[in-house]
Amino acid sequence: MSLIVEKYGGTSVGSPERIQVVAKNVAESVAKGDRVVVVVSAMSGETNRLLSLANEVNSKPSNRELDVLVSTGEQVTIALLAMALHSLGVGARSYTGPQVKILTDNIHGKARIVHIDSDKMMNDLNNDQVVVVAGFQGVDEGGSITTLGRGGSDTTAVALAAALKADECRIYTDVDGVYTADPRVVSEARRLGRITFEEMLELSGAGAKILQLRSVEFAGKYNVPLRVLSSFEGGPGTLITYEESSMEQPLISGITANMDEAKITVRGVPDKPGIAYSIIGAVSDAHINVDMIVQNVGSDGLTDFTFTVSGADLEKSVELLTPVVDKLDAQTVIGDTNLAKISVVGIGMRSHAGVATTMFQALADKSINIQMISTSEIKISVTVDKEYAELAVRTLHKAFGLEHLTNDLL
Amino acid sequence: MSLIVEKYGGTSVGSPERIQVVAKNVAESVAKGDRVVVVVSAMSGETNRLLSLANEVNSKPSNRELDVLVSTGEQVTIALLAMALHSLGVGARSYTGPQVKILTDNIHGKARIVHIDSDKMMNDLNNDQVVVVAGFQGVDEGGSITTLGRGGSDTTAVALAAALKADECRIYTDVDGVYTADPRVVSEARRLGRITFEEMLELSGAGAKILQLRSVEFAGKYNVPLRVLSSFEGGPGTLITYEESSMEQPLISGITANMDEAKITVRGVPDKPGIAYSIIGAVSDAHINVDMIVQNVGSDGLTDFTFTVSGADLEKSVELLTPVVDKLDAQTVIGDTNLAKISVVGIGMRSHAGVATTMFQALADKSINIQMISTSEIKISVTVDKEYAELAVRTLHKAFGLEHLTNDLL
Repeated sequence: MSLIVEKYGGTSVGSPERIQVVAKNVAESVAKGDRVVVVVSAMSGETNRLLSLANEVNSKPSNRELDVLVSTGEQVTIALLAMALHSLGVGARSYTGPQVKILTDNIHGKARIVHIDSDKMMNDLNNDQVVVVAGFQGVDEGGSITTLGRGGSDTTAVALAAALKADECRIYTDVDGVYTADPRVVSEARRLGRITFEEMLELSGAGAKILQLRSVEFAGKYNVPLRVLSSFEGGPGTLITYEESSMEQPLISGITANMDEAKITVRGVPDKPGIAYSIIGAVSDAHINVDMIVQNVGSDGLTDFTFTVSGADLEKSVELLTPVVDKLDAQTVIGDTNLAKISVVGIGMRSHAGVATTMFQALADKSINIQMISTSEIKISVTVDKEYAELAVRTLHKAFGLEHLTNDLL
Repeated sequence: MSLIVEKYGGTSVGSPERIQVVAKNVAESVAKGDRVVVVVSAMSGETNRLLSLANEVNSKPSNRELDVLVSTGEQVTIALLAMALHSLGVGARSYTGPQVKILTDNIHGKARIVHIDSDKMMNDLNNDQVVVVAGFQGVDEGGSITTLGRGGSDTTAVALAAALKADECRIYTDVDGVYTADPRVVSEARRLGRITFEEMLELSGAGAKILQLRSVEFAGKYNVPLRVLSSFEGGPGTLITYEESSMEQPLISGITANMDEAKITVRGVPDKPGIAYSIIGAVSDAHINVDMIVQNVGSDGLTDFTFTVSGADLEKSVELLTPVVDKLDAQTVIGDTNLAKISVVGIGMRSHAGVATTMFQALADKSINIQMISTSEIKISVTVDKEYAELAVRTLHKAFGLEHLTNDLL
């Protein structure tokens, strides 16, 4: 008898009919003898509907009240799913984040989970009840409703699995697993049977939109076996777990393209110590995540300092840097969104040289110009002109022979 | 500096624009120097939308989960109203029923308030914040969300006013006060400036749909001055308060017609002790409220036993009585919805005789046949054929001279 946490996203619970499909799926797990905790998101479209209501009464609504508002979305889903389970004869009780309770810090809209009470849930599970929990939300010390930010339902599921010491956390989504590349771009892309937390982290960070980065971090930290699978198609999906020495690791597990990256260049900075701090500090102090950073000193003693941020943060970043340009006596700051970040990720990279060479050569053969390069232990990322993104992914998929990859060991 | 509780119903908060109007109204109270707690309902239509979603997944949803579901309606409104107040520069914080917390018993869908914590609210009020509270909902000892039943937002407002020892509880609605009769039926109907709790109780019980019966009971019990006024038109509305000896009481304050009454007759019951208990007990054990009761013993020793229930309870009541008819050896049970209950209510009745005479004579003059009669200390009710309802109300309004009534003493 396993304890399973299942998470269904907004599309999976997007209508009463789909909620009934989810209920059937959960009922099957129960019939197998598993004890099940289900985490659900708001019905697709609901969060946007609520945000647009907010926008009609206040163009800059307070984060505290936004959380009160949007947290109703998941609350509707938990009630409907519990009702749907009842109609299948399956005992179920719903809980909002505050009811569980999922204690968070008080950063409304981006709260982090501090602690989860598992008593109520364990009590219900021991009484043969399915526990249905609202994802994405919690409560702070003062009793105010908080949300974890968009996509936070994955994090809720993983955190519950960790708190309950669940045997597996299943993330049901609209894809049937993690692929070597986006199948819409690369028709030969293969589904991975297994992948390590580290690879999944790098893939999520590199733009694969299957799982929220934070939920993977969390799962890795607490060693929660995580499985991504389709709520529509069935199949084993992809298991994300720690590297096992017995498992033959492929060199490269996946290739991603992140189209949402923007590049900022501060041109003509007189080269002296502290430039990087002055520039990056100004941006990251405003809680903007900086991704790739490149600095080149020219022969004239002037430096071009370039970094990337998420597209949504471009305008604000340039604004923040305008006074810095003056202070540093630099020439100008330029923003650019015409780029894609292409990443190859693989735990096998650790023990194999030559990945970078293969990557750069394959791109050169197709006359794709590389703008910036950054590397981690198991990832190499480059930025290229946006129009070459799909070609770059297909080229690298072939160069690393991923169409032949088989690691479906389950 | 007064402490005021203001309550706005579903129509008053039915759209973002209307919520902005409510915010302006609240802001005016704040500008006058009042400390304000606002209680709001779900946006009109929202509760029905949620109930129809429930119905799609389960035709008999559990009451616990229904409460989880429908309580999101008011939660949306409190957030939007707080945001709208912020955009007018008014400090405001929203609270759900569980957050306040409004402790109730655990009868989901019909919960009764047991206790209200006033600490958080007083703290906010002392910090110049408007407190926005979700009506209609609370939380039981176990932490489950409960609702007070439809219209329960009035009860929430009155209960908060009692807990906070507010100076006045204002119920904003789509009418501008309590009238001597329904103005759609009697064009000469007058708005009452004041009315006593007892009269308002009888009027609510007799079918006037302005205030929930329970909220009037509650206000009377805790002596909370209650004012009914329009959220659209302004004006002083009607103040509901305890009788003041200095105030000249009109003989009759109002005339109501309740079209939603159904009559049940058990015919030919052999007359012996315990009949009333056998019949009424069977119905009220099923939590059906019985209103008027009439028993006539005929010369043949057989009794016709007649009583009224709400139209919605007719079918079930007849069903419950079918075995009772057999047991009592009675002839049959008959249901009838072709009736209206006409009531005249007035605290002045206590000290004046002749109200019944005036009433019966006026109806007889118009050839309106009276079927049943029941009386209380300050109310006389009769049932008549439904088609005579409006004529009966107009006739009595004129007979008691209510078109000349002035008690607008405010």
